[in-house]
Amino acid sequence: MKRRNLFLAAPALISTINLGSKPAAAQVQPTQEWSTLTYQPMVLQQQLAANQQVIFDKPFGHFFKPDMTVPTEAAKMLLRGPLELEQTLSPSVADINRLLDLAYKPIERGYALLEGDTLYVQSRTFFPGAHTDMLKWWFVWHPVENERYMLWYPFAHVANAIEDSVRLKNRSLSYEERLYNNPNYVTEYIGTTPIDIVINFKDPVELGFDKAALAKSGFTASASGTVSNSFVPDGVSSLMVHLGRNIDGGMELINRYWIGSHPELNRLRPKGESFKEKIVKMIAPKMTIDTCYEMAVHDMIEFHHLAQILPTLYQEFGQQS
Amino acid sequence: MKRRNLFLAAPALISTINLGSKPAAAQVQPTQEWSTLTYQPMVLQQQLAANQQVIFDKPFGHFFKPDMTVPTEAAKMLLRGPLELEQTLSPSVADINRLLDLAYKPIERGYALLEGDTLYVQSRTFFPGAHTDMLKWWFVWHPVENERYMLWYPFAHVANAIEDSVRLKNRSLSYEERLYNNPNYVTEYIGTTPIDIVINFKDPVELGFDKAALAKSGFTASASGTVSNSFVPDGVSSLMVHLGRNIDGGMELINRYWIGSHPELNRLRPKGESFKEKIVKMIAPKMTIDTCYEMAVHDMIEFHHLAQILPTLYQEFGQQS
Repeated sequence: MKRRNLFLAAPALISTINLGSKPAAAQVQPTQEWSTLTYQPMVLQQQLAANQQVIFDKPFGHFFKPDMTVPTEAAKMLLRGPLELEQTLSPSVADINRLLDLAYKPIERGYALLEGDTLYVQSRTFFPGAHTDMLKWWFVWHPVENERYMLWYPFAHVANAIEDSVRLKNRSLSYEERLYNNPNYVTEYIGTTPIDIVINFKDPVELGFDKAALAKSGFTASASGTVSNSFVPDGVSSLMVHLGRNIDGGMELINRYWIGSHPELNRLRPKGESFKEKIVKMIAPKMTIDTCYEMAVHDMIEFHHLAQILPTLYQEFGQQS
Repeated sequence: MKRRNLFLAAPALISTINLGSKPAAAQVQPTQEWSTLTYQPMVLQQQLAANQQVIFDKPFGHFFKPDMTVPTEAAKMLLRGPLELEQTLSPSVADINRLLDLAYKPIERGYALLEGDTLYVQSRTFFPGAHTDMLKWWFVWHPVENERYMLWYPFAHVANAIEDSVRLKNRSLSYEERLYNNPNYVTEYIGTTPIDIVINFKDPVELGFDKAALAKSGFTASASGTVSNSFVPDGVSSLMVHLGRNIDGGMELINRYWIGSHPELNRLRPKGESFKEKIVKMIAPKMTIDTCYEMAVHDMIEFHHLAQILPTLYQEFGQQS
């Protein structure tokens, strides 16, 4: 049909609507406008209803807030088409370390399909009144119960479990000792697709970040790791980066996702195993520009929502593990 | 999978979020908040880019506005689950005439799946500063060119043609003489699904509205009709109602859609033909609660957008046919 396959027209859209790059500090403006979600797929509305059935009598049930909003400008950014490739980063060691360079000012939010049919999403989210200690607490607190995980994205989050919950909850250990190399089993919707993944949070240095540069950059919290999924449980399908640092008025969180058969992901994969072929055959073909956009929307919604509830949630439950 | 088929949980969602019915005048409030669209499927973004390629040099190209907004409250209403069946109308003569009763105050916006796998959507849209003459002009002006139709919903409208364009453009005839029984061929996306339909705009009395009640109700514009589609081109798959009347500060538009094999639609269908079976077999099964919601979102977006451009578009092109 002639109205399909019009993706090549997208750059015209970008230039006409005048995207341009914005300074990284743009989101700190207190005058920013917010938009309520104008759409959620029916299957997510049904998941919300199901979540509501189980969460209402939890002590933290009042933090389950289905009236979700995002900054108007963030939503508009994602409606302006994919990023140009020169605005993106690869998952190489050199590229990920650019995130630690204070002079690097990427477009705040966007997505693209990279080589190897690799999904790519980038975002920066400002958490007003938050601190990296709160983010660390969130990552060791929420995997304990499905319902805690649901607070983060009431429409799309289904289930969450951790391999070693005793270690996760042990407050005598550091954040890193509790969370890293403690597989986290996650079920959620990305767009209308339910996915089952295993996140292995790791020391960012193990993922390729330079230790000295990391210390200098001010990123005092990392919830980064590799991810495998139910199609290829024995492999690594993606690299996920969440880096938080304290700035004026709150915390900023820098996120990156790469999912697919990008050659630079091979450095994170066990060598000589059949799963590489499986990733090329089973994961990469599922990554399309649609998937990239859906992932970018998911990230925008869940992290702006977490930003809205985290400081008060921490105030009430921050002493709980 | 246990997380599917949770639709029965939706009423709990409705009651918890406290929908309630709102007075029909609620949208007239000038203080109402607006939200930018927080999501559009990738295929619609690609259609927008394609539309932009052909519209930019049209004399009305400056009315092609991709930064679309809807009232925040309207978007929220559609995220509260389907309507209870007692809040809906059937396409029977008795039910459609309730729309003409000034005492009938339905919920402003919603959707449901009715008997016969029938899609149902209801809405009321306020057009500030507009008049029913503008709406009539819109319906005889826009089918002349695909690009005019694109102004209405830049992401989702693809093509529009009229059977007898000479009659449509003849300004010596009345609106009714120009538009009614002049088949209108429409291609658009509802959700991510491209549809090809034929709208037969008709005298509302032919559709079952009471002539005296219609005159008394103040609805001075109707763009209502039956619709058939490419699956069953020889039949009638739906009844569509658009009724406009002038009120304080502008125009209000009342919309209703019924698509499927509802028994009350048979009164609008030629008798004894095989298409009835086709509708039961081919149209009705495609109508799910998802389709209903997608149609409700489409209606919300396109009519609030038309409301935003119509007065100034009419001022500039109202003398053109």
